[in-house]
Amino acid sequence: MTKNHLRIGLVQMRCQKNPADNLKKALSQVRIAARKGAQIVCLQELFNTPYFCQGQKTEHFDLAETIPGPVTDALANLARKEKVALIAPLFEKYRKGVYYNSAAVIDSNGELIGKYRKMHIPDDPGFNEKFYFSPGDLGFKTFKIKSVKISVLICWDQWFPEAARMAALDGADILFYPTAIGWKPNKPKETEAYHSAWETIQRSHAIANGVFVAATNRVGQEGALRFWGQSFVADPFGAVLYRASEKDEEIVIADCDLAKVEQTRREWPFFRDRRMDAYQAISSRSVEKKN
Amino acid sequence: MTKNHLRIGLVQMRCQKNPADNLKKALSQVRIAARKGAQIVCLQELFNTPYFCQGQKTEHFDLAETIPGPVTDALANLARKEKVALIAPLFEKYRKGVYYNSAAVIDSNGELIGKYRKMHIPDDPGFNEKFYFSPGDLGFKTFKIKSVKISVLICWDQWFPEAARMAALDGADILFYPTAIGWKPNKPKETEAYHSAWETIQRSHAIANGVFVAATNRVGQEGALRFWGQSFVADPFGAVLYRASEKDEEIVIADCDLAKVEQTRREWPFFRDRRMDAYQAISSRSVEKKN
Repeated sequence: MTKNHLRIGLVQMRCQKNPADNLKKALSQVRIAARKGAQIVCLQELFNTPYFCQGQKTEHFDLAETIPGPVTDALANLARKEKVALIAPLFEKYRKGVYYNSAAVIDSNGELIGKYRKMHIPDDPGFNEKFYFSPGDLGFKTFKIKSVKISVLICWDQWFPEAARMAALDGADILFYPTAIGWKPNKPKETEAYHSAWETIQRSHAIANGVFVAATNRVGQEGALRFWGQSFVADPFGAVLYRASEKDEEIVIADCDLAKVEQTRREWPFFRDRRMDAYQAISSRSVEKKN
Repeated sequence: MTKNHLRIGLVQMRCQKNPADNLKKALSQVRIAARKGAQIVCLQELFNTPYFCQGQKTEHFDLAETIPGPVTDALANLARKEKVALIAPLFEKYRKGVYYNSAAVIDSNGELIGKYRKMHIPDDPGFNEKFYFSPGDLGFKTFKIKSVKISVLICWDQWFPEAARMAALDGADILFYPTAIGWKPNKPKETEAYHSAWETIQRSHAIANGVFVAATNRVGQEGALRFWGQSFVADPFGAVLYRASEKDEEIVIADCDLAKVEQTRREWPFFRDRRMDAYQAISSRSVEKKN
């Protein structure tokens, strides 16, 4: 790797019921990715639990972890040992009755350098997240790792161009999107349309912002949901560099040539031409007058 | 057509040197589209001139037209006669030394109901637009036609998610993107990447905003540029309903089921979950501190 290249790893895995089993598997996959040269590895959303948001059950709050806590400690130990930075999305317990859908960011020396709390919280059949998670209160964030600024945005954040833009305005060269998205068995004909829209909107963030985008999705059947995998990495032109399997666990390794960020933005200088004077209404619910 | 359906027409054409010839052809194509039932027809960017921005020549300012003026009058006559609304992108002369890349919007009774002036102006080899056009000063706009709110954004605006969002926040159900984009002959290997990014970013505006997107591009060789046609219509899920030829003139007719806007937004309620409290920096050049 030259100093302009960064090798990233994405761990696409199946989750079991028992968090300890998922942590164990994740540690093992991260180790493999690190030994393949990955400098930053991103796990999937809520990596150490099943996707418990299919229903509303108070006992699921028992799955939450503090940050820092035993899970981030185990990851930090591995990070230090393997000299690999980690993005570890976790169900975060903040205090009694306040929980977040978060991601801990751990540097390759084992230091917990910060966390992001999912800003946009979905709530629809099969994805009852508003029951479990308070909306993030830390804003959009960037983290410096290996002299590269990265940002972490989580799943539903994918659909909001504002989130990607905020990260890019803060200097992020790579946007990581840990995710848990899948098909509902009763909607077969919409299946490809859903996946296509999901990949398209994220490729568009790469294009609009001239950044790399890396999405890690889980895989496998859990209750009524079949998670569609297909973790992928897109370059600043929106071209898909690698797309993982729809069904199998996989460790994605991709090399990001960071010089491409500057190069793409020179050719397509969108940041030069933004009309910052005219975007105020983005901060409003609507411009239309309604009762 | 039920009241929830709107039939739209896009005129993808080759332009000749003489503006009168282009106007004549456009009038004829609009008539055909109207007789196929199109209720709104969108012409391509700078529809009545060649794409003169390949170089910087002061004599090209002679191509500009006032709005209203003889060109919009001719279009308004046709609109009234054929009962069809029109989006007519024109090189607009505002006053001595002040010109815009604009689009006149004409209702089906022949009334000029407004105009939009391109907000984001490109400037790169082959596309020297900053030499000719002042950046738009009217903001992002919507227009009510047949009880449907539509918005017009022009070419380079395509790359800015903010523009699409502003239009949607003002209630637009269809975004029209008149365009003049093509390949440079010296960059053969990037050709498909460019087109793919162009279509992807516009499909993403449909997805992010739950709206229809209709892009009209010119076709044919002009100087060093080969315009890539492929005018298209995407539904609020980002699915391409129709994509025109890469080489030939074409009149695209597409039916937009406007009930899909509400339906898509109910299933994917992004507007419910936007974090208006956290987007302020969108109105800044950068969040990073730089000298």
